[in-house]
Amino acid sequence: MSQLRRTSAEFLGTFWLVFGGCGSAVLAAAFPEVGIGLLGVSLAFGLTVLTMAYSIGHISGCHLNPAVTVGLWAARRFPAKDILPYIVAQIAGAIVAAIALYVIASGKADFSLAVNGLATNGFGAASPGGYTLASGMLIEIILTFGFLVVILGSTDTRAPAGFAPLAIGLALTLIHLISIPVTNTSVNPARSTGPALIMGGVALQQLWLFWVAPLIGGVLGGIAYRMLSAEETVVKPAITGEPAR
Amino acid sequence: MSQLRRTSAEFLGTFWLVFGGCGSAVLAAAFPEVGIGLLGVSLAFGLTVLTMAYSIGHISGCHLNPAVTVGLWAARRFPAKDILPYIVAQIAGAIVAAIALYVIASGKADFSLAVNGLATNGFGAASPGGYTLASGMLIEIILTFGFLVVILGSTDTRAPAGFAPLAIGLALTLIHLISIPVTNTSVNPARSTGPALIMGGVALQQLWLFWVAPLIGGVLGGIAYRMLSAEETVVKPAITGEPAR
Amino acid sequence: MSQLRRTSAEFLGTFWLVFGGCGSAVLAAAFPEVGIGLLGVSLAFGLTVLTMAYSIGHISGCHLNPAVTVGLWAARRFPAKDILPYIVAQIAGAIVAAIALYVIASGKADFSLAVNGLATNGFGAASPGGYTLASGMLIEIILTFGFLVVILGSTDTRAPAGFAPLAIGLALTLIHLISIPVTNTSVNPARSTGPALIMGGVALQQLWLFWVAPLIGGVLGGIAYRMLSAEETVVKPAITGEPAR
Amino acid sequence: MSQLRRTSAEFLGTFWLVFGGCGSAVLAAAFPEVGIGLLGVSLAFGLTVLTMAYSIGHISGCHLNPAVTVGLWAARRFPAKDILPYIVAQIAGAIVAAIALYVIASGKADFSLAVNGLATNGFGAASPGGYTLASGMLIEIILTFGFLVVILGSTDTRAPAGFAPLAIGLALTLIHLISIPVTNTSVNPARSTGPALIMGGVALQQLWLFWVAPLIGGVLGGIAYRMLSAEETVVKPAITGEPAR
Repeated sequence: MSQLRRTSAEFLGTFWLVFGGCGSAVLAAAFPEVGIGLLGVSLAFGLTVLTMAYSIGHISGCHLNPAVTVGLWAARRFPAKDILPYIVAQIAGAIVAAIALYVIASGKADFSLAVNGLATNGFGAASPGGYTLASGMLIEIILTFGFLVVILGSTDTRAPAGFAPLAIGLALTLIHLISIPVTNTSVNPARSTGPALIMGGVALQQLWLFWVAPLIGGVLGGIAYRMLSAEETVVKPAITGEPAR
Repeated sequence: MSQLRRTSAEFLGTFWLVFGGCGSAVLAAAFPEVGIGLLGVSLAFGLTVLTMAYSIGHISGCHLNPAVTVGLWAARRFPAKDILPYIVAQIAGAIVAAIALYVIASGKADFSLAVNGLATNGFGAASPGGYTLASGMLIEIILTFGFLVVILGSTDTRAPAGFAPLAIGLALTLIHLISIPVTNTSVNPARSTGPALIMGGVALQQLWLFWVAPLIGGVLGGIAYRMLSAEETVVKPAITGEPAR
Repeated sequence: MSQLRRTSAEFLGTFWLVFGGCGSAVLAAAFPEVGIGLLGVSLAFGLTVLTMAYSIGHISGCHLNPAVTVGLWAARRFPAKDILPYIVAQIAGAIVAAIALYVIASGKADFSLAVNGLATNGFGAASPGGYTLASGMLIEIILTFGFLVVILGSTDTRAPAGFAPLAIGLALTLIHLISIPVTNTSVNPARSTGPALIMGGVALQQLWLFWVAPLIGGVLGGIAYRMLSAEETVVKPAITGEPAR
Repeated sequence: MSQLRRTSAEFLGTFWLVFGGCGSAVLAAAFPEVGIGLLGVSLAFGLTVLTMAYSIGHISGCHLNPAVTVGLWAARRFPAKDILPYIVAQIAGAIVAAIALYVIASGKADFSLAVNGLATNGFGAASPGGYTLASGMLIEIILTFGFLVVILGSTDTRAPAGFAPLAIGLALTLIHLISIPVTNTSVNPARSTGPALIMGGVALQQLWLFWVAPLIGGVLGGIAYRMLSAEETVVKPAITGEPAR
């Protein structure tokens, strides 16, 4: 695949992740009486990754997340020279998704960005449940660590073929089921950046945490799986594999 | 497969989609205290497609949706001459499903078509959350676009074999998790047409949008995936492939 | 497999279906504030079949349901001589499950069989939403019909191998998402019989419907799929296939 | 695989199970208005196993549960000499997870271990729904029995390859959908031990039941599947198989 096709796929996939995940939170989570709640939002985030991993995994590897890209590099499954273009495409997709979501959500008489928000991440007073920076930092590191173990393990050539997108998507659902109350769940710096740029304010001030913690967790997860599994060679570049280049 | 078998499968599958998806909304979504809510309706719509795609995909390709049929044609995976018979069968299945649902739902003392409805789609005052025509148009285009990318990507010969019905069904669940509050979610002109013909009134007046937007999104999605993936040949006619004719 | 092993598997699997499905309804559906609701019950019923179909499908075919056994016979995939032993084993498993559930549920100070029930099926005044006999009959026939189409289609040799238990289990989830308010959802005479025998009264008086409607739907579904698919030979005896005998 | 790699995988996987399952219960189940409820917790527990079974199944077999380890031994699929190191690793992972969860959960102004708890298991006054010791004992035995049947059946070489982690993870979801109100659901002595050691008090006094009942159920399930299936040789050590040693 050409680099343009691969970064276009990352752009499109990250758009889908942010539009779908944050969109479900903003539009449907608290709909009166029949809203989908945090369970529905958790499912939506996971399904954005599950669906795209089956659809564009063979084009770009379907990372959709700078912490995944960097974690895969730490596990020696992704070349350093491709990190930057992937991350740029991911952030661009997240920004465009946040804009599209804002345009749609504001097509409602009583919409207010300040009140309804754009599903941004936060800690302290900006945490949905009022959790501290330390709690937010720790849970984001642990969950991104686990996310990378699942990504690396399920795409290992010794794991059952074809199931990785299912395992990875549902891992993201699981991660949200645990941690939305703490940080509104990031584990993905691009997902945090798009909405924060539109919202500004506290979301933008606290954005650093949602780069630092997922990247730490991702790198540690990448190293841990490599040690745990005794992998000696590069197996596949990413989620559902990619044709040799 | 003979054309009769294929269009019969589309009729049956679209019946299942509308009866199951709209049926869960009308009968179970707002059941007191333990109702399934928008999350349950989202799951139901997705599972109608997942279950039928595994069951009749090898007969008709399991489109169940004019926007899918036209999008597959735009991606050069479906012959123009079969578009009309497929769409006719889909609409017929949707109409019969809406009638069956109406008959069952009205077997309850306090049922009122005007109050309970038949899960029709709408915008403005007819949008569940009061969203404008512009919001409805935009979200239906975006989501049908993404739906076609998932359909085309997951049925690509380079994607893991056998998982497409799972990815496609769960993509429809995801789409509903995001957009029920905006338009009650169509992304499928046949699904909108069946209930609208029984309901009449506003649902019928606004039906045009749920043809125009999904068809635009479907065609754009078909073209986009073809460009993104560098497909050069017809791969498979549809969801789970079909025996050569 | 010996007949004893096969009927033992049907006994065990139907026990799991009734204990799990009805158990989730009786014990967890209406738990204060955090109860699983009809969505959770729908998921539970589907997962009983999904999990057992992957686990005992290679032993007995994992019918767990007289309407499935008879529908498979109508589709010419199951021998007439095995129908009776399968149905006897299914009913026995359902009865033992209902007894076990009753014993467990009554280990609570304020349990009352009359108030909490055992997730029996019913119509009219015994329908959860107050739907008539005609609505109940029609929806049970339609949904069992669709259930058999999914079972037969997804186990067709032309469908992706290995996914049938997933499709069939989730079809049962879908069926419950639609119809719990109407009849409490049967589509399975054995599932209705076990709890009705413990409850007695109205549940037992109305039990005939939950034999008649599922069997009609199952036979029609079996015939319809055979016509639709142009199957000419017996493909596999049941859900996930079975070793040749 | 070296024994260190295998026990490290069991440690990590059991950490994920307890951190994810109990974490979702403590942090998100009862979040005001949009909490994930018992349905979300059930899904979370199941997804911890599903995701890890696809990721480390090829390293350790992914038991994450002493009752599974012992049940596999009873079914003659796991060597006696490895039982102890596996169980030690599982308990260690559960303890570390309970500590991490406690640290994170307490990063909230109004957190109280006595009020919010750590998702410990219990019976009688400590049962979420007030169920007796006998009800708790019986349901834990039955559900662990069924869990082992699903584990052994879905990893049988005659079952569809690759789907076992899906079936096993969703079996754990099903088990929670039924039994959280009765015992808060254990079926796993390690999962019960971690939180009980932090909580102390009643949770620790009642811990014996959540060793006794799951181990009985696990052994019975292991024996039952072996008899039911006429397995004559050791098939695979565990969940997704493991490279020969």
